[in-house]
Amino acid sequence: MAQPRKIIIDTDPGQDDAAAIMLALGSPDEVEVLGLTVVAGNVPLTMTSRNARIVCELSGRPDLPVYEGALKPLERPQVTAEHVHGKTGLDGAVVDEPTMTVRDQHAVDFIIETIRREEPGTVTLCTLGPQTNIALALQKAPDIAPRVRELVMMGGGFSEGGNITPAAEFNIYVDPQASKIVFGSGIPIVMMPLDVTHQLMTTKARVARIGAIGTRPAQVMVEWLQFFERFDIEKYGSDGGPLHDPTVIAYLVKPELFAGRHCNVEIETESDLTVGMTVVDWWRVSGRKPNAMVMRTVDADGFFALLTERLARL
Amino acid sequence: MAQPRKIIIDTDPGQDDAAAIMLALGSPDEVEVLGLTVVAGNVPLTMTSRNARIVCELSGRPDLPVYEGALKPLERPQVTAEHVHGKTGLDGAVVDEPTMTVRDQHAVDFIIETIRREEPGTVTLCTLGPQTNIALALQKAPDIAPRVRELVMMGGGFSEGGNITPAAEFNIYVDPQASKIVFGSGIPIVMMPLDVTHQLMTTKARVARIGAIGTRPAQVMVEWLQFFERFDIEKYGSDGGPLHDPTVIAYLVKPELFAGRHCNVEIETESDLTVGMTVVDWWRVSGRKPNAMVMRTVDADGFFALLTERLARL
Amino acid sequence: MAQPRKIIIDTDPGQDDAAAIMLALGSPDEVEVLGLTVVAGNVPLTMTSRNARIVCELSGRPDLPVYEGALKPLERPQVTAEHVHGKTGLDGAVVDEPTMTVRDQHAVDFIIETIRREEPGTVTLCTLGPQTNIALALQKAPDIAPRVRELVMMGGGFSEGGNITPAAEFNIYVDPQASKIVFGSGIPIVMMPLDVTHQLMTTKARVARIGAIGTRPAQVMVEWLQFFERFDIEKYGSDGGPLHDPTVIAYLVKPELFAGRHCNVEIETESDLTVGMTVVDWWRVSGRKPNAMVMRTVDADGFFALLTERLARL
Amino acid sequence: MAQPRKIIIDTDPGQDDAAAIMLALGSPDEVEVLGLTVVAGNVPLTMTSRNARIVCELSGRPDLPVYEGALKPLERPQVTAEHVHGKTGLDGAVVDEPTMTVRDQHAVDFIIETIRREEPGTVTLCTLGPQTNIALALQKAPDIAPRVRELVMMGGGFSEGGNITPAAEFNIYVDPQASKIVFGSGIPIVMMPLDVTHQLMTTKARVARIGAIGTRPAQVMVEWLQFFERFDIEKYGSDGGPLHDPTVIAYLVKPELFAGRHCNVEIETESDLTVGMTVVDWWRVSGRKPNAMVMRTVDADGFFALLTERLARL
Repeated sequence: MAQPRKIIIDTDPGQDDAAAIMLALGSPDEVEVLGLTVVAGNVPLTMTSRNARIVCELSGRPDLPVYEGALKPLERPQVTAEHVHGKTGLDGAVVDEPTMTVRDQHAVDFIIETIRREEPGTVTLCTLGPQTNIALALQKAPDIAPRVRELVMMGGGFSEGGNITPAAEFNIYVDPQASKIVFGSGIPIVMMPLDVTHQLMTTKARVARIGAIGTRPAQVMVEWLQFFERFDIEKYGSDGGPLHDPTVIAYLVKPELFAGRHCNVEIETESDLTVGMTVVDWWRVSGRKPNAMVMRTVDADGFFALLTERLARL
Repeated sequence: MAQPRKIIIDTDPGQDDAAAIMLALGSPDEVEVLGLTVVAGNVPLTMTSRNARIVCELSGRPDLPVYEGALKPLERPQVTAEHVHGKTGLDGAVVDEPTMTVRDQHAVDFIIETIRREEPGTVTLCTLGPQTNIALALQKAPDIAPRVRELVMMGGGFSEGGNITPAAEFNIYVDPQASKIVFGSGIPIVMMPLDVTHQLMTTKARVARIGAIGTRPAQVMVEWLQFFERFDIEKYGSDGGPLHDPTVIAYLVKPELFAGRHCNVEIETESDLTVGMTVVDWWRVSGRKPNAMVMRTVDADGFFALLTERLARL
Repeated sequence: MAQPRKIIIDTDPGQDDAAAIMLALGSPDEVEVLGLTVVAGNVPLTMTSRNARIVCELSGRPDLPVYEGALKPLERPQVTAEHVHGKTGLDGAVVDEPTMTVRDQHAVDFIIETIRREEPGTVTLCTLGPQTNIALALQKAPDIAPRVRELVMMGGGFSEGGNITPAAEFNIYVDPQASKIVFGSGIPIVMMPLDVTHQLMTTKARVARIGAIGTRPAQVMVEWLQFFERFDIEKYGSDGGPLHDPTVIAYLVKPELFAGRHCNVEIETESDLTVGMTVVDWWRVSGRKPNAMVMRTVDADGFFALLTERLARL
Repeated sequence: MAQPRKIIIDTDPGQDDAAAIMLALGSPDEVEVLGLTVVAGNVPLTMTSRNARIVCELSGRPDLPVYEGALKPLERPQVTAEHVHGKTGLDGAVVDEPTMTVRDQHAVDFIIETIRREEPGTVTLCTLGPQTNIALALQKAPDIAPRVRELVMMGGGFSEGGNITPAAEFNIYVDPQASKIVFGSGIPIVMMPLDVTHQLMTTKARVARIGAIGTRPAQVMVEWLQFFERFDIEKYGSDGGPLHDPTVIAYLVKPELFAGRHCNVEIETESDLTVGMTVVDWWRVSGRKPNAMVMRTVDADGFFALLTERLARL
């Protein structure tokens, strides 16, 4: 049987980050989590660091190393999303404060050292938030780029417009300079855009199936999801809201759930109107070289079945 | 019965412009064409001027006044699309050179004087190409803006990306500065983007029904459409190509064919990567005031039935 | 003896525009003023139109044709400078309202027709304000560019920074899109930047010599200059303020007063920080083709002697 | 007597960087060099690292710690200046390859740790090249900014235009994103622009006085300066070329040599035409808060006397 893929999860939890991390920890045959690196994003770094450790402890993995990274984006002022995630980033469930501590090493140095230490082509980077840490690592140590197996990310959009501006998705908008560095790095990229995640609605039925697991982690996840989806329910009147970040891990566990196209993606950094846009050359009109696998469709029932099954293993 | 709407068609023919003009001339109960103003676009101005007159004569309307306007975009270097429309812009059929002449008056002055002369709120502007002429008229005579009833246009895109760059549709890309002026003018706008026109494929069956009309204009139209669609057939292997410009006239004749949303649209002019993009705030995340009715769906069979019926009347 | 040069003065008076117009009207051996075209700039168009006619009547030339042009810049929102020129643009002296009227023709059409009518290479354009009218004429009638003898302009800066932003001078800042069109037109350009005009201080002694002329026009000019300079006196504590626009006419009358360098100038239109900047390649580091004679030094005493002498002839 | 100021020199040698470093090492009463951090700039990092060590050894300081930093700018493609500095960056003199080695620690981490370790307000950063290392340190450890005493830098320009483009000076142009971060950091900045360095010509007489010292370091310096100045001599026919980087150290040793103004400086990063420009609000027209002391004049003879005196001490 194949070895599990070695991954570093770079994350800014966030309820949906929590779901992604728990999906990874529930899938040890497919992925080996070398560490979590946290970044400012949905909420400030102090909170994302706390939240990452809450998720580890809830998943029974207080041993998992957690590293703190960038406090703010490379260039732009910090933007956060408490209106979606709540003040702590993990509003919705009552959980204990974490007792595990973060590691001393800076996240950027952990990323660099890990990629340098492991065999070339074996480490996969998973980014669930703004890509500041990855960009800083690439700036400090450009030699790591060709050693990375793949970078799988939640971010951007193509046919749906953005969720923070008409042109931009939140993760890219927060630090477009970082994403420009990532997309220009030569690392093979798999991108999970809003086109995919908007097909993954946390309907009442799907959430109920997670609740039926009956364990503590599943119960907390249900409460988080119910909090997280309320923003979209209120705004668009839908049955549930889109679930973003677990797509990254789901792809590593079961890639056949997704379909897309290998094409060129450039990151807009100049214009106030379109800054943070992922300019996807879906129809290949630009002549620019493809640099990312952009997913556009997903087997939504298959995705939720996988998520439910793996949460049950925690 | 209602009076026909008074319209000025601003155009850069182009086979699909020809179809739009002929649809208008075949619909005298619904629209009264006050004049054609031509602009550089698909091909240079000398050619678009010639082509407009060819279409008038082919439609039995050598009396229709044709005015020449802008030779090139407001600021950017000229870009044309002979790779799509052929060298003349009307490649595909053998037609006589026109004998009618253009009027002496500049297109921009015709537009200004007509809008000032007619009752306020009665003149509709139809733009089938780059909006240079309209922008020049608005710059020279800002007083006309509140007198225009509506501006119906083919241009831009939302969920499909662009056709000339990954972010931009041809008409807007050619003169984004002009379109920025138009979208900022306060004139009520109805926009037919690629989202709509890509649903209007000139399939063999649809073209055959036009051919079955049996008249000279219909026969020439068939030859034009067959030439026009070859670019997409070769590139994407589809059954026919999208038909763009007649949507503008079809909306005036039978608005119920189309559905869309009233939202804010801004024109990107700054960034090399996204210049010419119509930034559509479909989900109303920006707080900016709606300024255009952006169509997204069309009754394709109803559209081609209308086009065929009206071509038959010429 | 040489024929006087035929000039059109495009202007947004303004006290210093008034000085420029009066310098021209006092120099009939050197320049023949074909007409004044007015543009919005220092104050709105209604006022610049009124002011141009006040200056004509004050100079004993109610016969001079005055044409109204653009109400606002090509793309950007209007910016005016009442804090410098006062509410009317000609604050400082009590003058009668003008009785002469403007011509019916639009300034842009007057410019186009005049250049087409006169012998190629004989008409010089003088711009004392934002270059909107010239840009509109070039957009509507690109054929006129090679027929223009020279365009002499007050605007821009090189070594002094700007006067409206750190990077931009007022005339260019107000309509950078227009100036970009002008500098890209191929018309030979002579540019009088802030570098020159900041050497031309309206000191008490110089203004007194104008007052000593003793005529009505000279007396009014003194009052205008005293009003105009108060802004700089208050801000920088200097003896008088810089006199900008008459440099354009002084160059036509006595070019040997000025020295500069033929180099490339590009107009910045994209960046919020530098928009309206004249990017002067003084040291020829860019490899771009020279398109303007950029003046940098002036014989200040010679300039004021000329101005005083010619005002005395009115 | 006052303690010497503790400084870190961030450098991309370069002949004039060498002069700066040697000026610092010859001034131990005034400055204590804690370490050299090297960055890609005039030539690639491998060469700047080598060159820094050559200068240490030539100055009799093989003990001085040298740290390697960024291989390339934060975002933009690398630009170097071999046409000025020669292939090695230190062309002009025959010198031994260095035997001392670089430290293991990354320059960015050395900067962070040093500033965190020393008393707040005691460490001064001196930047002689692109500011990539400083920006990376500020991104990774924002807490260091308020602990820095001052950042003294060679870079930018105001009244002279640029030396790599019409608007930009080389050091800022190479990594404008980095300089934007530095100028936005809140660290007190002293800026030595081209306005100052162009007053510091390495005339034959001045170079001869350095040669008259008669030591090995002085002799090598003469050869370097003669190579370095040839670019300007050939291009502008001047007597010598401008000497840039030693101004930074000269300011720390003898600040009264320089005069300037405390004003706002913003770094242009968006426009192709003006990217890398230091937009200096010399006349305070913007209302933006001053963030840098911009020097504009220098006592050139005093400067060269200082440089010569201190080189003699090595």
